[in-house]
Amino acid sequence: MAEKFISDRNLKFLLYEMFDAESLLKYPRYADHSREIFDMVLETAMKMGKDLFKPIFSEMDKQAPEYVKGEVKVHPQVRTIMRECGAGGWIGATFNCEHGGQQLPEMVGMMVPTAIFAAANYSAAVFHGLTGGAAGLIASYCSQEMKDLYLPKMMAGEWQGTMALTEPQAGSSLTDITLTGEPTDQGYYKFKGQKIFISAGEHDGADNVIHLAIGRIKGAPAGIKGISLFVIPKKRIENGKLVFNDVNCAGIYHKLGYRGAPITQLAFGENDDCRGWLVGEPNKGLSYMFQMMNGARIDVGLGAACISSAAYYASLEYAKERPQGRRLSSKDPLSAQVPIIEHADIKRMLLFQKAIVEGSLSLLMQCSLYHDMEKVTEGEEHENYNLLLELLTPVAKTYPSEMGILSCSQGLQILGGYGYCDEFPLEQFYRDVRIHPIHEGTTGIQGMDLLGRKMMMKKGKAGQLYLANVRKAIKAAEDDAEMKPFAAALETALGKLEKVTAHLFGVAAKEGPEMFLADATLYLEFFGIIAIAWQWLLQATVAKKALKGNVGPGDVNFYNGKVCTCRYFFGYELPKIEGLATRLLNGDGLTVTMKNDYFEE
Amino acid sequence: MAEKFISDRNLKFLLYEMFDAESLLKYPRYADHSREIFDMVLETAMKMGKDLFKPIFSEMDKQAPEYVKGEVKVHPQVRTIMRECGAGGWIGATFNCEHGGQQLPEMVGMMVPTAIFAAANYSAAVFHGLTGGAAGLIASYCSQEMKDLYLPKMMAGEWQGTMALTEPQAGSSLTDITLTGEPTDQGYYKFKGQKIFISAGEHDGADNVIHLAIGRIKGAPAGIKGISLFVIPKKRIENGKLVFNDVNCAGIYHKLGYRGAPITQLAFGENDDCRGWLVGEPNKGLSYMFQMMNGARIDVGLGAACISSAAYYASLEYAKERPQGRRLSSKDPLSAQVPIIEHADIKRMLLFQKAIVEGSLSLLMQCSLYHDMEKVTEGEEHENYNLLLELLTPVAKTYPSEMGILSCSQGLQILGGYGYCDEFPLEQFYRDVRIHPIHEGTTGIQGMDLLGRKMMMKKGKAGQLYLANVRKAIKAAEDDAEMKPFAAALETALGKLEKVTAHLFGVAAKEGPEMFLADATLYLEFFGIIAIAWQWLLQATVAKKALKGNVGPGDVNFYNGKVCTCRYFFGYELPKIEGLATRLLNGDGLTVTMKNDYFEE
Repeated sequence: MAEKFISDRNLKFLLYEMFDAESLLKYPRYADHSREIFDMVLETAMKMGKDLFKPIFSEMDKQAPEYVKGEVKVHPQVRTIMRECGAGGWIGATFNCEHGGQQLPEMVGMMVPTAIFAAANYSAAVFHGLTGGAAGLIASYCSQEMKDLYLPKMMAGEWQGTMALTEPQAGSSLTDITLTGEPTDQGYYKFKGQKIFISAGEHDGADNVIHLAIGRIKGAPAGIKGISLFVIPKKRIENGKLVFNDVNCAGIYHKLGYRGAPITQLAFGENDDCRGWLVGEPNKGLSYMFQMMNGARIDVGLGAACISSAAYYASLEYAKERPQGRRLSSKDPLSAQVPIIEHADIKRMLLFQKAIVEGSLSLLMQCSLYHDMEKVTEGEEHENYNLLLELLTPVAKTYPSEMGILSCSQGLQILGGYGYCDEFPLEQFYRDVRIHPIHEGTTGIQGMDLLGRKMMMKKGKAGQLYLANVRKAIKAAEDDAEMKPFAAALETALGKLEKVTAHLFGVAAKEGPEMFLADATLYLEFFGIIAIAWQWLLQATVAKKALKGNVGPGDVNFYNGKVCTCRYFFGYELPKIEGLATRLLNGDGLTVTMKNDYFEE
Repeated sequence: MAEKFISDRNLKFLLYEMFDAESLLKYPRYADHSREIFDMVLETAMKMGKDLFKPIFSEMDKQAPEYVKGEVKVHPQVRTIMRECGAGGWIGATFNCEHGGQQLPEMVGMMVPTAIFAAANYSAAVFHGLTGGAAGLIASYCSQEMKDLYLPKMMAGEWQGTMALTEPQAGSSLTDITLTGEPTDQGYYKFKGQKIFISAGEHDGADNVIHLAIGRIKGAPAGIKGISLFVIPKKRIENGKLVFNDVNCAGIYHKLGYRGAPITQLAFGENDDCRGWLVGEPNKGLSYMFQMMNGARIDVGLGAACISSAAYYASLEYAKERPQGRRLSSKDPLSAQVPIIEHADIKRMLLFQKAIVEGSLSLLMQCSLYHDMEKVTEGEEHENYNLLLELLTPVAKTYPSEMGILSCSQGLQILGGYGYCDEFPLEQFYRDVRIHPIHEGTTGIQGMDLLGRKMMMKKGKAGQLYLANVRKAIKAAEDDAEMKPFAAALETALGKLEKVTAHLFGVAAKEGPEMFLADATLYLEFFGIIAIAWQWLLQATVAKKALKGNVGPGDVNFYNGKVCTCRYFFGYELPKIEGLATRLLNGDGLTVTMKNDYFEE
């Protein structure tokens, strides 16, 4: 199997050459850090990825978690990984020092290790990742007492954290959540209800599981306005001891991929003894949860990009080593066969993979920069970074996820019949990556979020800020003669984006929300392609500039790879917006008006 | 699990309303048949699909074939299915009566049962299918003695037939085939060599396996010009007894999907006792093999379309039954949830599935009609049908295969998290269908076949005939006011096809084959979308005409479904050619000229 799963050279390129992580050091929040520390984070994470995560990539898939009488047995290495991540400070590395964190920038403390671990072994990387997300919510919104109770154990990787949203009757429809807590005079609520599809909701790699669950206080208003957020532990502390808190695991799912991580069904309060504690204020649960959810959506996009990264390197290795056929210009059957990377169609597929992987990673790092800047700025500047992050979150979740499927599929295709067999890792990447357009909000939900909410909020301010940022990249690229046509193509694409958006806003005003959002998924796809084109223009501009300096042969290849992949993206991917724009400008309401009966027969 | 896996109503629509299978009855070859017989074939196949194939769909996946000491154990039902298919006359139903066939038209005898069985259980449907293909080659090119020896057993479903092409060092590169037969004075050749990825190459559901293998006679010219076709049985007959023929199964592959069928590695002549017999003339093997290969390519497209069909009905059932959320126009959280089919995005995904499934089936049936017409015509007419079939074969293989992946993926997406779990069949469809762009010639190979060979042959005559046929459909559609814009859109698309093709021919002349074929895969995609648009225009035109008559309520839904899906295809799918045309008209040779080193790091 290919050793390589992610390029640390590329991560450094993104951190330092694209997004200037060092510039964050001037803010008091990050003043105690340095480039050396950032480099060390990257190196240590690479070492952990290689030594801890990668070796059990296939094993965790083949020895999937087992459910036995309410308990879930996971690969024994999960416990080690959780503890090592705890000991190394990887859980909550971006938290404030006061919460036991290291106050690292998101770009460094979150993106770098999450990317590396996910590329090495996605299933293994979600345990501590979820724990960090849950701990972050506790750090942000809970009382000091609860922080003291939960954070040390969670950040040490001893206790698992979860995000518990989905219920059987309410998949994407959070309005219909029914997990209910009855107030008591003891400060806690007594819970009854069920959750399904809860990642790492129960397993023997942790000593306790802390559920961050949305539900209702009994008698709360119907719908989203009555949703609160609670901490519901699997085991609660009574008289200094851990006591079972009546959270029962009713089973796990047998999944297509992502098999190393147990996805659980949970029953709360079957024996009327499940206690939970309110987070923050009543009926504001969804807004709190969205802190974790937004982070989780970025993580999902990142996970997909990183599975695709590992798939890319596996295909690349095969393509360089597998001899088959000859160049079309030399068909002498007695000549030696060439490695398949010499065939244009194979090279095209590799470029597709590289374009998806590195384009996605770049957009994700861009989001992370906005996140960091949001933390260190105030007033309108702060609001602007927040708006940009909010706007791009559904894109950064979806583009890598949807395109990751195609990218891993092309990777599999490069190996031909071998790609379809489990002696090579491609079939597992293909299975693993398929979850990403589903979990943490399906692609359909993301499309409605982007068009129906994010593009509309603050009178479209987020969209305006975004356009201004893309145009800055266009302006910077125009100075380079080779980049100029790409800059122009992106400007044309932005024009299309503006035209399509204005058209759809008109539909919203004239024909209402159903017609407005009927093709929101296509709008998201359309928006996503343009966003990745922006990132490729940025990357190629930086690379071209670097090539003018004094660079070694390895870097010459690296930068030229960036320029070629930018050419690929503008040549093969960006034109896909043409057909999408045609559709989006000519919606006929077919999917709103067509009778269900027409599907019969 | 959804009961329904294919629509017999739609198959009848294709047979009788679209392609007028009854018109074949006027030819002597088919004169003994009747509409009643055709109907009976369809009904019997539906019954067999439901009773024999479908019940073990999931079981065959979970209890995949096992390799034990050179033997392969398959699901016990495989033997039953093989025998039943033999007894029912399904193997070689289209063969001449003199060869034990029923001389049914391909549309009826091949397409209908193959579609139904593949939709019910793809893995189970390949055993007798491959046997029919191999028997067809023997019927066409072998001596009477060999026919008498093999055909009765194969057509009875007692002996398995295979198509043995791939070798370890020569995947898609048939030039490099090395299986070698040394002539003897006994009329047979003694073989040494290996084959890999041979479907049903060894299993205990049949009493013998007859390999139709390509190889070389010792001393034959290098390359494709030295390839001959042979019959190499697993067991040969000596003194009236079956004797082991030194064909050893070295192992089977563990695959992502399509798990019920064993894909084998074979070693010929390890003990210097493997005998094979030449088919037809020496060094002409590839042309014979292409009879089976072309049929197999149509079968692969059909298999993909039919897996997608079963996935579509499973998603449809779920979408109609699963309540979740509310229409955007009524967000009252106290109102009842609606079935998810009411959401525009879900309806769009279902329409996508329906468009792929029924568009693909229609194109495949169109090919089948050409095949039938080729058989009953002579001279230029015969040649024209042959050219059309040759031209469309890579398209009919690839469009359903590539789009089948996306179609099953959308089907899975409709079920959300449940789609990812094995309690629903979508994840299996998603795995099963992934093989189709690989086996019987990858998509890359099909692209080069279409652009580099089929569009070029006879000075482009096939392409001209095709354009004329599509324009006939456009003309017929123009009479209907609702169809007129679609007819115009298809004419515009044909204009693009002509322009792109002429441009690429120019590239071929000026810049040579590498540049010409660099984006052949994209050309195939581009060509395929237009071909399916043609089929949708035909289908909707027929449906609109039918709606003007006196039709029952079920048929009103059926025909309106056709019209809506045509609208879907022209609204959402056909515009995809715009971006493809942009790329194809602006090739820059990136994938031909880019250095391999640029992929480093």
